[in-house]
Amino acid sequence: MLSEFTLISRYFERPARPDGRVVLGVGDDCALVQTTPGMQTAISTDMLVEGRHFFPGADPHLLGHKCLAVNLSDLAAMGATPIGFTLALALPSVEESWLAAFSAGMFALADTYGCELIGGDTTKGPLTISITVFGEVPAGQALRRDAALPGDDIWISGTLGDARLALAAYRKELSLSSEALDAVAMRMHAPSPRLALGTALRGIAHAAIDISDGLVGDLGHILKRSGVGARLDVDALPLGSTLQGQAQPLRRAFALAGGDDYELCFTASEQHRDVVLEAAQRAAIPVTRVGSIVVEPGLKLIDAGGTIIELSLRSFDHFSSL
Amino acid sequence: MLSEFTLISRYFERPARPDGRVVLGVGDDCALVQTTPGMQTAISTDMLVEGRHFFPGADPHLLGHKCLAVNLSDLAAMGATPIGFTLALALPSVEESWLAAFSAGMFALADTYGCELIGGDTTKGPLTISITVFGEVPAGQALRRDAALPGDDIWISGTLGDARLALAAYRKELSLSSEALDAVAMRMHAPSPRLALGTALRGIAHAAIDISDGLVGDLGHILKRSGVGARLDVDALPLGSTLQGQAQPLRRAFALAGGDDYELCFTASEQHRDVVLEAAQRAAIPVTRVGSIVVEPGLKLIDAGGTIIELSLRSFDHFSSL
Repeated sequence: MLSEFTLISRYFERPARPDGRVVLGVGDDCALVQTTPGMQTAISTDMLVEGRHFFPGADPHLLGHKCLAVNLSDLAAMGATPIGFTLALALPSVEESWLAAFSAGMFALADTYGCELIGGDTTKGPLTISITVFGEVPAGQALRRDAALPGDDIWISGTLGDARLALAAYRKELSLSSEALDAVAMRMHAPSPRLALGTALRGIAHAAIDISDGLVGDLGHILKRSGVGARLDVDALPLGSTLQGQAQPLRRAFALAGGDDYELCFTASEQHRDVVLEAAQRAAIPVTRVGSIVVEPGLKLIDAGGTIIELSLRSFDHFSSL
Repeated sequence: MLSEFTLISRYFERPARPDGRVVLGVGDDCALVQTTPGMQTAISTDMLVEGRHFFPGADPHLLGHKCLAVNLSDLAAMGATPIGFTLALALPSVEESWLAAFSAGMFALADTYGCELIGGDTTKGPLTISITVFGEVPAGQALRRDAALPGDDIWISGTLGDARLALAAYRKELSLSSEALDAVAMRMHAPSPRLALGTALRGIAHAAIDISDGLVGDLGHILKRSGVGARLDVDALPLGSTLQGQAQPLRRAFALAGGDDYELCFTASEQHRDVVLEAAQRAAIPVTRVGSIVVEPGLKLIDAGGTIIELSLRSFDHFSSL
C-alpha cells in the first residue's frame, strides 16, 4: 500500500526546471514563483468529476491531458503565457498503473507549454480532479470578456462541434463509422489549448473567451459583460470535418451549442482583419470570421441568405440537468 | 432551479476591493492579479471531501471557514501575506440556504485577512471543495521546510490535540461533557490560521510547517527536507485546555499525532529565543519551545525526566486506511 506521501513523490514530484520562474515546487507548504515585472498574473481553476465531465473508466492518459488542457485553454483566452499549475486529486483507491498513465498524459502536455506542476493535494474520495493554472500577461494586454465593441468582427479558431458529435455517438444518439468516431473522439478527449493564438492576439483582439460550454452560451458571456449584441452567420461557422457530413439541424446545433470545443471566440476591429489573419498564421491556427458585434443587445442567428433563424439551443450548464 | 451562472454570481461574485491587487476578479476566463516587485508569489492547494475531511451534514458556515482556513494556514507556514484564492466546488444539488451559509463563513474569514475570491468553478458531484490560495512573501524570506539547522530550537504555536479530542468524542472513542465538547469542537471546525505569526517570523525562523496531519508527521517533513534529526520534549508540548484533563497516554498521542491542529511548527536559532518571543507577542499568538534540531537523523521523543520514550504513532495519511 502506497502512502499519500510516497504517491505524491513517485508520480507528481519532479525537479524544478532550471530556467523556470518556479523558485520552489511540489513538497513544501506552498510553492514559490518569481513573477516578472510589468506582467500581471492570470489565474483560472476548473474541476472535473467522474461521470459528469468524463466517463467512468476513462483512459487515464487522455484524462491527464484533458484536465490540464481545459485549464490552459482559459489562459489562452486571456492571451496569457503559462507558468505553472496545482493539482488537487481525489481518488477512490490508489492504482499505480492509473496514476502512471494520468501523470504521463498531464506532464506531456505541461512540458509542451513549459507549464510546471508546482503543488497539489491528494485524498481519498470519488474521482475528482481540480486544477488551478496560472500564467502571465503584460499589464493591460489581457483579452477580457468585457472589451467587445460594436462593429467588431467575431472570429472563431479551428472548428466546432466534433467533440459534441463524439459525445452523441457514445450516448448512442447517432451512429458513426469507427474511423469517424476515432477522429471525433480525439477532439473530445484531447483538446489543444490555443495558447499560441491567444498570445499572438495580444494588442489585436478586443474581447476573447474559450468555447467550453458551446458557442452561443460563451459568446453570450462576452455580450453580457461588454453590454453589446451580436449577429452570427450560422452558415459561416467552421465545422469539424466529421460534423460536415451530418444533416443541417444537427450541424447547426452542435456547432452553436455543442460544448467541449476549446476553441477561442474573439472579437477584433474590422480594420484589423489582415492583422488577425497574420497573427493566426504566426500561431499556425486557422481562424474564421463568423459575425459582428452590434449595439443592440441580444444574439441574432442569421443564415447565408440573410434570414434570421430561430433555434432552441441550450448551452451546457453543470446544474441544468439536476 | 438556479443555473450554474446565476449560482456563481449570487453567492460568489463580489466587487473587487478598490485597494486590492486583484485587477480582475470572478467572471472572466482568468482572474488578473498585479504582483508586487521584489515579492515572490506563494501558492498552495487543498481538497476537502465530504465524509473524509468533514462529516456529512457538516454546518456549512463552519465548513466555509475551515476550507479557507486550512489553505491560509499553508500561507502562514511560509510567512506569506494572503492576496486571493480560487474555489472549485462540486455539489450534489443546489441548496440556496447551504450556499448562503457556506459563502458567508468563507467570506468572513477571507475579509479578516484581506484575501479575495478571484475565481472558481462549480459543478454537480459528490460534495468536494478545492481551494487554491496565493499570497506574497519578500524574495528569499519564505519559511521553507528545508531550512532547519542543527542546534535550532523547535517551537510550536498555540496548543495541540484538542481538535483530535473532538474527533474522538464524535467517534465515541471517549466521552466529554457538553461544555468540553463545545470547546474542542471549535478547535476542530474553526481553526485560526497563524498568519500574523508567520509574517512576524520572516527573517527570524529558519524552517516552518503547519501542523495539519499531526506534529510527528509534519515535523518529520522538516527533518527529511533539511537532512537533520530532532529531540522532542514530549512533556513540554502545549496541550489544548481540554486535552490537559485526559490521561497521559491519550494526551501524548493526540498532541504528537492528532491532526487538524493548524498550528505552526518552526525552528529558529537558540540565539534568537528573545526575538522569537517578541515576534510571537507582536502577533498575539503564544509559542512554546519543545525541542531542538540535531545532526543525527531521526526523531527522538524524550520525557521530562530525560528518558527516551517509544510510542507507536501514525500521522494522518489520507490513503492509509484504504
